[in-house]
Amino acid sequence: MKNFDITEDPHRRFNPLINEWVLVSPHRAKRPWQGQNETISTEVLPKHDPTCYLCPGNARANGMHNPKYDNSFVFENDFAAMKQDEIMFEEDIKHTFFKAQPERGISRVVCFSPRHDLTLPEMDIDEIENIITTWKKEYTELGNIKYINYVQIFENKGAVMGCSNPHPHGQIWAQSSLPTQVEKTQNNQKAYFDKNGTTLLADYLKAELRSGERIVIENDHFVALVPFWAIWPYETMIISKRSFGKITDLTTDETGSFAKILKQLTAKYDNLFNTSFPYSSGIHQSPTDGLEHSEWHFHMHFYPPLLRSASVKKFMVGYEMLGESQRDSTPEKSAEVLRQLSDVHYKTAKV
Amino acid sequence: MKNFDITEDPHRRFNPLINEWVLVSPHRAKRPWQGQNETISTEVLPKHDPTCYLCPGNARANGMHNPKYDNSFVFENDFAAMKQDEIMFEEDIKHTFFKAQPERGISRVVCFSPRHDLTLPEMDIDEIENIITTWKKEYTELGNIKYINYVQIFENKGAVMGCSNPHPHGQIWAQSSLPTQVEKTQNNQKAYFDKNGTTLLADYLKAELRSGERIVIENDHFVALVPFWAIWPYETMIISKRSFGKITDLTTDETGSFAKILKQLTAKYDNLFNTSFPYSSGIHQSPTDGLEHSEWHFHMHFYPPLLRSASVKKFMVGYEMLGESQRDSTPEKSAEVLRQLSDVHYKTAKV
Ligand SMILES: O=P(O)(O)O[C@H]1O[C@H](CO)[C@@H](O)[C@H](O)[C@H]1O
Ligand SMILES: O=P(O)(O)O[C@H]1O[C@H](CO)[C@@H](O)[C@H](O)[C@H]1O
Repeated sequence: MKNFDITEDPHRRFNPLINEWVLVSPHRAKRPWQGQNETISTEVLPKHDPTCYLCPGNARANGMHNPKYDNSFVFENDFAAMKQDEIMFEEDIKHTFFKAQPERGISRVVCFSPRHDLTLPEMDIDEIENIITTWKKEYTELGNIKYINYVQIFENKGAVMGCSNPHPHGQIWAQSSLPTQVEKTQNNQKAYFDKNGTTLLADYLKAELRSGERIVIENDHFVALVPFWAIWPYETMIISKRSFGKITDLTTDETGSFAKILKQLTAKYDNLFNTSFPYSSGIHQSPTDGLEHSEWHFHMHFYPPLLRSASVKKFMVGYEMLGESQRDSTPEKSAEVLRQLSDVHYKTAKV
Repeated sequence: MKNFDITEDPHRRFNPLINEWVLVSPHRAKRPWQGQNETISTEVLPKHDPTCYLCPGNARANGMHNPKYDNSFVFENDFAAMKQDEIMFEEDIKHTFFKAQPERGISRVVCFSPRHDLTLPEMDIDEIENIITTWKKEYTELGNIKYINYVQIFENKGAVMGCSNPHPHGQIWAQSSLPTQVEKTQNNQKAYFDKNGTTLLADYLKAELRSGERIVIENDHFVALVPFWAIWPYETMIISKRSFGKITDLTTDETGSFAKILKQLTAKYDNLFNTSFPYSSGIHQSPTDGLEHSEWHFHMHFYPPLLRSASVKKFMVGYEMLGESQRDSTPEKSAEVLRQLSDVHYKTAKV
């Protein structure tokens, strides 16, 4: 009988942040692909697109005009998933099987730049710092609203991720409940903190730095790595070295380091397949419920769908929906690939 | 302050099978779509495709030739996600953060028909019964293998669901562990059964039949409905009226009723957008671990991605990945639409 070799043998790995397993099939990386190919836009975008509802000065769906903004610009989502109205809710509507409760929230859109054609890796560090400052402002402003207990900052990038406009932008959904994934993450961080007196991610990061295998980028204050339990082929996480709970806790130096690692990581992503790399990314941080949350450790997830080229993505379907997440090849391999890639964007690199 | 109106106000619903919430935004159904459109294949398929590795008599990737099969045909997946080898596993590899364990399993492909161009809703009832018989045989055969504790039967249909071949087929992944989603479902069914002495889904089905609002099809032995907590726009579940755990428990009559409801439901799906409707579907049933599982209630999930036309799908990205599943419009609306659709396939309906 052969000894377990994690680089070769099918196995499951455990994600302690959400208490779930992922099936890893290292040997399956080379299966042929005869399925759907994604369309890749090779269109060169203008700096300003008169038909774009996110560009400065242009009209939005509701008829309002965007200001002629200079760096980032925030507005309420015209088709928000939640509403701000307070709703009267009779507890007796509760039912064993038909359990529902009203949810209040606010959705905002954050334009990252007045330039229609610039994505994160192509921006200057101070432009990215400016986005972080906007996120801080929004986290504070939304978090201060009495009924808002959680602020989800995220970005959907690329048509394959359901993004309907290439103008660089992210979203913020702030709401009264903790969303499912955030609640799970909080519960597991809390259990760990109560037991060990340190945050789960501080100790995890120490173990990762000791190992080195999955590290992609390290600077003074942040590390970007492929988590041991990564589901998506090139999934990464940015983790702060210091333990703190929320974006407003970032010092000036940390803000600079965060901007730098964001630029470098997204540049590596674009360089992987010489394409504007699609992903969903988002920050997981302390709720704004007014409670002490020493268990929370600030981090950012990147979930990119591409598998082996700009046009072949990983499908999380069938077995993954009914059974459990599954990946081909190991997180260590992906980390190695990302680590070795240049962090100078291919469009600006001298040839 | 306005009273909670579940047909209009944003709210969360609870899924007792997996203990998770979904965010429902009834008002958001009408937001404009400027994003990615799926490519729809309008190609008329031949009855036999000489280049298809699933058609009778043709060669597969490994060089082997398929038999000239008459109804269904099963073979081992040439690029399986798991392997059958027994692996020696030192317990001390276990680690707080780097927790991994080898997983043994078998993946098979089930061709539903020798015809390259026939999908479930276009097949005769006895052809579908034949597929069910094949599933029973596989469940028994794989389940009897000592190290196999769970048998996941599923189908990925359509290019948008990562299916790389239109020849009608499904898959079976059988393995030593309970996959994450199955384990959650089992735990919640068990807690319910231990408390009430009846299965969760038997009681849920009673409540749904009393309400009627979410029922799509009902026959003597099965009900197809849009679950109260459905995530996907036209998600459905087929639930058996009688409480039993596994496909091999189906009586002859029940097998016939199951075949009928499968045909009718998938015909309604195709009729919705006059297209071969993509989905992932799969059966959740008792593990094959040799234990008594009175808590398990046989059911089948359908997770179709289309939102409002054959080319516009729901993207489960950003907020959904980082926060929680979100749907536009209510399950009740979707059930009404599906209920009112004809169950005679549009290709065969007289015009
Ligand atoms: O095995 P197939 O059909 O090539 O692959 C398809 O189904 C599998 C099981 O749901 C998924 O893991 C793959 O991502 C998908 O492309
Ligand atoms: O709000 P948008 O960008 O139109 O929509 C996109 O992001 C949302 C939040 O992740 C998702 O719910 C939608 O499915 C997706 O298309």
